[in-house]
Amino acid sequence: MKTNKISSAVVRRLPKYFRHLSTIENSGMEKISSQQLSEQTGFTASQIRQDLNHFGGFGQQGYGYKVGDLKKSITNIIGLDKAYKVAIVGFGHIGQAIYNYKGFDCKEFDVVKVFDVAEKAGEIAGVKVDPIKKFKDYIKKHPIDILVLAVPVDAAQEICDIIEDGQVKGIWNFAPTDVVVKAAIPVENVHLSESLYSLIYYMGNYDQY
Amino acid sequence: MKTNKISSAVVRRLPKYFRHLSTIENSGMEKISSQQLSEQTGFTASQIRQDLNHFGGFGQQGYGYKVGDLKKSITNIIGLDKAYKVAIVGFGHIGQAIYNYKGFDCKEFDVVKVFDVAEKAGEIAGVKVDPIKKFKDYIKKHPIDILVLAVPVDAAQEICDIIEDGQVKGIWNFAPTDVVVKAAIPVENVHLSESLYSLIYYMGNYDQY
Repeated sequence: MKTNKISSAVVRRLPKYFRHLSTIENSGMEKISSQQLSEQTGFTASQIRQDLNHFGGFGQQGYGYKVGDLKKSITNIIGLDKAYKVAIVGFGHIGQAIYNYKGFDCKEFDVVKVFDVAEKAGEIAGVKVDPIKKFKDYIKKHPIDILVLAVPVDAAQEICDIIEDGQVKGIWNFAPTDVVVKAAIPVENVHLSESLYSLIYYMGNYDQY
Repeated sequence: MKTNKISSAVVRRLPKYFRHLSTIENSGMEKISSQQLSEQTGFTASQIRQDLNHFGGFGQQGYGYKVGDLKKSITNIIGLDKAYKVAIVGFGHIGQAIYNYKGFDCKEFDVVKVFDVAEKAGEIAGVKVDPIKKFKDYIKKHPIDILVLAVPVDAAQEICDIIEDGQVKGIWNFAPTDVVVKAAIPVENVHLSESLYSLIYYMGNYDQY
């Protein structure tokens, strides 16, 4: 199925296709043309067809896409059909927001452990929290899938330096700094302020919006 | 300076240029070539030159860019040289995270009012919070710049329906749903899960990363 390297722009659009297809499926619609999908997503029909062709197509000339099938395919392509074991490091507002969020669409987003520097008597906000100094030992013995990094800038790289091959499969980093890891794993650096700055740009340039 | 419509892809890259230039400036570097900027940002040198040309250039053949000047220009282009009056609606984990975050680079990110359904005796976590039912009247009398929308999905559109022309200049929406407004203002819908799903994709396809 997969032939060449998929560009990161395509990978960034997959979650958007997933989200729109979920909405479309919930509305009861069973099939959709790339033209309709274009109106829904804001991408051009030809871009959508091109994107989906990377993974084998799915559409039928003159018919369009079966919404349920296409959503299921994209679920599998992304990897949302699988369960993930998660550790959260840093249990401030962002850590707690992720912990409490129930809307992730993967099979399981299973937070197995939470660490923080400020845990008092082993808990924060009613949640069992381990002291951050135990993270290194824990991760050696208990490999996890996703590390949610929600610590201040200063601490973020320090935590990443601890991680060895095979201990973590991916890092979702909310510290406003690009962290690097020696292990061969993907890191997703979330920069919340970037979306604020795009908004601010459009507030001053609404004609461009 | 501005000639044609700037594509949203360029607008999305501006905050990234700003972020990298801040890092470069902090490192004490005074000038930078588009080639070096390319290594830093991951965009191609020609893309960087093209992007910056939309706003008038700034570079000098064979010299590169003056880091401080370029950062200042991008600050002004985005609108980070201005102060913004902010209201936060929804004071759960995300609302509190935004309230407490001190790293926004605009001249001021001044939270003048916070609203929530669950305020008890006028405060949450030590912060003065007004009942959400007062939002409509408040916004009529006190126009703000940025509305941070951090309420659950069900409430998000309802809040947006209240907003009339001239009351709010832009909406930064963290509710995991695309909201629409009748007023002619930009809306930035943040979908945190999208970055998680890109991460999950790369966890299963590290060869593509």
